[in-house]
Amino acid sequence: MDDCIFCAIVDGRAPARMVASNDGAVAFLDISPLTEGHTLVVPTAHSRDLLGAAPADLAAVTDLVRTVAPLVLDGVGASGFHVMSNTGAEALQTVFHTHFHVMPRRHGDGFAPDLSGRGAPPEQLDAVHTRILAAAGR
Amino acid sequence: MDDCIFCAIVDGRAPARMVASNDGAVAFLDISPLTEGHTLVVPTAHSRDLLGAAPADLAAVTDLVRTVAPLVLDGVGASGFHVMSNTGAEALQTVFHTHFHVMPRRHGDGFAPDLSGRGAPPEQLDAVHTRILAAAGR
Repeated sequence: MDDCIFCAIVDGRAPARMVASNDGAVAFLDISPLTEGHTLVVPTAHSRDLLGAAPADLAAVTDLVRTVAPLVLDGVGASGFHVMSNTGAEALQTVFHTHFHVMPRRHGDGFAPDLSGRGAPPEQLDAVHTRILAAAGR
Repeated sequence: MDDCIFCAIVDGRAPARMVASNDGAVAFLDISPLTEGHTLVVPTAHSRDLLGAAPADLAAVTDLVRTVAPLVLDGVGASGFHVMSNTGAEALQTVFHTHFHVMPRRHGDGFAPDLSGRGAPPEQLDAVHTRILAAAGR
């Protein structure tokens, strides 16, 4: 797509700090990193998000995540990482070309999102469960 | 593994609010949700994390994420979602059986992790890039 920045990077029409690639995906540094070494893994074929991507494109992305993560960890001296993909504006998706974030983590890196669970009473979980099963026609 | 809670759920030795399954993965509600409908998608075969999982197991997980996400969104009335997998204690992994979080999002849901990019000067990105390429032997 002409107006897609990730398509432009894939096609070489826009610059990026490339890390690795395979037959169906490319990996390059995020220009606004959450953590040092923050890398994006993107299918070469355009799709809006992971629900719209072809299974083969997601397989290429998954493979490349597994190739890239150890390189990135080694490069920045980290030992853990988040993999994250956001679908929809409500989930903070801002570029509408499927992409996975690989975010290296190490102790004291200053990235402290509040990802602690809120807990929930069993009856509340049961109610949500019932609604999801109903959505599934069960 | 006998002492793995997710293996126990897969085997039916521990209870869970099951949402869906396929040949290689199961999906069930997180008992400590970050957002309403927070669901975990887990390969049936034990592995420590996504670097240790077999490609076929990750393919089953990816397929199930794509099946489950629309059901969960429909069930809780959300329109976006995060997919996240954490590898290593530094990345807040606490259960060492590969799993992906599916977290529905909607406006005003009160989940506000700071996921805004920090930005980085080009020369800092270039230095990180050089270190990662060196780790890749390039």
